[in-house]
Amino acid sequence: MLTLASDFGSPYPAAMKGVLRSHGVTDLVDVAHDLPQGDPRAAAFWLRFVLPEFPPAVHLVVVDPGVGTDRAAVCVRAGDHALVGPDNGCLLPPARALAAATGDGPEDVAVFAVDGGDPRSSTFHGRDVFAPAAARVHEAGVDAVEGLDGFERVADYDDYRLPDAWLETATAAGEVLVVDDFGNAVTNVPGSFLDDHVGESVVVETAAGRQAVPVVETFAEVPKHDPLVTVGSHGYVECDVNQGRGDEAFDLAPGRSVTFSFEESVAATVPSF
Amino acid sequence: MLTLASDFGSPYPAAMKGVLRSHGVTDLVDVAHDLPQGDPRAAAFWLRFVLPEFPPAVHLVVVDPGVGTDRAAVCVRAGDHALVGPDNGCLLPPARALAAATGDGPEDVAVFAVDGGDPRSSTFHGRDVFAPAAARVHEAGVDAVEGLDGFERVADYDDYRLPDAWLETATAAGEVLVVDDFGNAVTNVPGSFLDDHVGESVVVETAAGRQAVPVVETFAEVPKHDPLVTVGSHGYVECDVNQGRGDEAFDLAPGRSVTFSFEESVAATVPSF
Amino acid sequence: MLTLASDFGSPYPAAMKGVLRSHGVTDLVDVAHDLPQGDPRAAAFWLRFVLPEFPPAVHLVVVDPGVGTDRAAVCVRAGDHALVGPDNGCLLPPARALAAATGDGPEDVAVFAVDGGDPRSSTFHGRDVFAPAAARVHEAGVDAVEGLDGFERVADYDDYRLPDAWLETATAAGEVLVVDDFGNAVTNVPGSFLDDHVGESVVVETAAGRQAVPVVETFAEVPKHDPLVTVGSHGYVECDVNQGRGDEAFDLAPGRSVTFSFEESVAATVPSF
Repeated sequence: MLTLASDFGSPYPAAMKGVLRSHGVTDLVDVAHDLPQGDPRAAAFWLRFVLPEFPPAVHLVVVDPGVGTDRAAVCVRAGDHALVGPDNGCLLPPARALAAATGDGPEDVAVFAVDGGDPRSSTFHGRDVFAPAAARVHEAGVDAVEGLDGFERVADYDDYRLPDAWLETATAAGEVLVVDDFGNAVTNVPGSFLDDHVGESVVVETAAGRQAVPVVETFAEVPKHDPLVTVGSHGYVECDVNQGRGDEAFDLAPGRSVTFSFEESVAATVPSF
Repeated sequence: MLTLASDFGSPYPAAMKGVLRSHGVTDLVDVAHDLPQGDPRAAAFWLRFVLPEFPPAVHLVVVDPGVGTDRAAVCVRAGDHALVGPDNGCLLPPARALAAATGDGPEDVAVFAVDGGDPRSSTFHGRDVFAPAAARVHEAGVDAVEGLDGFERVADYDDYRLPDAWLETATAAGEVLVVDDFGNAVTNVPGSFLDDHVGESVVVETAAGRQAVPVVETFAEVPKHDPLVTVGSHGYVECDVNQGRGDEAFDLAPGRSVTFSFEESVAATVPSF
Repeated sequence: MLTLASDFGSPYPAAMKGVLRSHGVTDLVDVAHDLPQGDPRAAAFWLRFVLPEFPPAVHLVVVDPGVGTDRAAVCVRAGDHALVGPDNGCLLPPARALAAATGDGPEDVAVFAVDGGDPRSSTFHGRDVFAPAAARVHEAGVDAVEGLDGFERVADYDDYRLPDAWLETATAAGEVLVVDDFGNAVTNVPGSFLDDHVGESVVVETAAGRQAVPVVETFAEVPKHDPLVTVGSHGYVECDVNQGRGDEAFDLAPGRSVTFSFEESVAATVPSF
């Protein structure tokens, strides 16, 4: 199986599928082709969330704002999986999650620089470099990456890590990693921060101001169009609105700061919401 | 074969695909993942339209505004097909169509409550409850649903039916069920209402006022950007614009009322359009 | 293998997939279903770009603003490939590219009119005419098209050709063929026009005025949000913006004129940009 993920929209991904089929790879699964454009960090988040659900596979990932520059092409081996894409960090967070999920430690990943040859274009390496490389890995098998011609193990690569939130017992300061298609603003604050607080209010501070918002397990616990804070299916704290858009209600976008607080002295200054 | 339909946008459906592949289901077909968000009625309409085109299959349908509440997970057996999703009515109209299409009567459907166990999340039952349940039905076969552990036949479920239009010989009063990507406003008035009227004008009354509009068989029978009324490929009366948006021209949206009339006395008061 | 391309958005393509699966075609690959609506020219451009990447296949292409009129259904044989869709020209440019890519000359294509029978609807021939016809070609094989019942070789068809640009040594006058999802405005000026000019400035004249813009090989050669001119992966000159939208910066849309000039006398009158 070979999965495809990109920020290409349409119809560019079809050119990659054609190349893969021409290389004999028949079992293709689309992950997403509308990842946020030119944003390796968002790709890292979404793929860390999604790829561990898959059985062993080769994952072609092309979010590549540096296409045509001297950034390398890389293949990352992680457990029984391999990821192929640009060396801009977007592969490493999902690779560590895959390595952890398959029994290795999260740091037990191996990165290979891939010789892209002389590509047909300088603007579409998804078609000209990454798809052929992924097809070769798929054909050889993940265990055979080390011996593939043009694949060289490297220690120097973009070892990107998603930013950590700052956590205290009753306060967490983080940032928005992505906003999903529902408008849910997903932060980097671990869901465990809300443990034992379901049913309480948490003070959320964003550019929109401070507001006390219910901590719930399900959207339906608040009235339609009301804000809420919950733990999303990825395990992180989200700022949402029941059947509405959390990003708008909280004035949040990727990269913006958000602080959650259960401190009583703070909460007391906030009007009921 | 297992088809997938949801209102999840992207990339959440890929997590479901990963779960299904991990459960050994290899033949996946995407129906749509941009069904109108949180609207089981629209899902019911579209799936009643689309699913009868398929050969026998398991259909995973997740439009689930009540995720995390105590709404049940259900599996509906209909002829050689099975549908798996939330008990909010969105499965029943397509199930009745599948039962009718496969030779049974439309009411010959069987509904099973599915024990979802203790899901990993309270916000993504598509991944945690419905995909694993659909994989089990796919593996066991539609005929074996009755004996599956955790599947219990029930008589009490959300037996949703799409609303009927009110029909007289020369007048039909209905409502818009969905607006498609072309802007065509699809009503619940059966296409047979227009039988023998092609080439005439019909008076359409909506919030935009009353207008006499040509009844045609093909869009190209009216000039570009002109309004028209026709029978869509689903068999219902549509308010459309040739190479334009019917929803805007007629000020229509899902749930809004629309009346069609061939009464001469009414038509006579309408200026030529 | 059978590929699908359309301007149908969602969920109409799923009805075509159901029909194809019901006809026994299991190996389906989505090319795109968001081709520009009702624009056979844009479809011709994109499919000429994408389809030659695929190994031999049947390609179902439905961009059909004349659905229900007397425009014919056609099957175009091109090398080891066949294309099935409406006779509005959208199949011919990709067919010539496929014929050229498979060793035949680009003009070595054969066009067959297809008897569509008595379709269920007059508005969804993708489901009712083209999908069944494509399934028949897929089952019989591309070489057997000539003998298929209801397929008749014809000499009279819409032999559409994408418009040529007007080229001199230092000046090219063309038009925009498509704008992609990144906002890149793709013209019909062949990339060879920029040969030996990388690193220079070219004067671009559009409705937005005249501006001298760097000719580059990669987007990253100009600062973020700056305009550039480059050769896209399809081999044509594009007007782009690094991590921005070229269509907006240059005020371009499909069909609009654009002139590129390296003439010194012209360039001298343009302020540094």
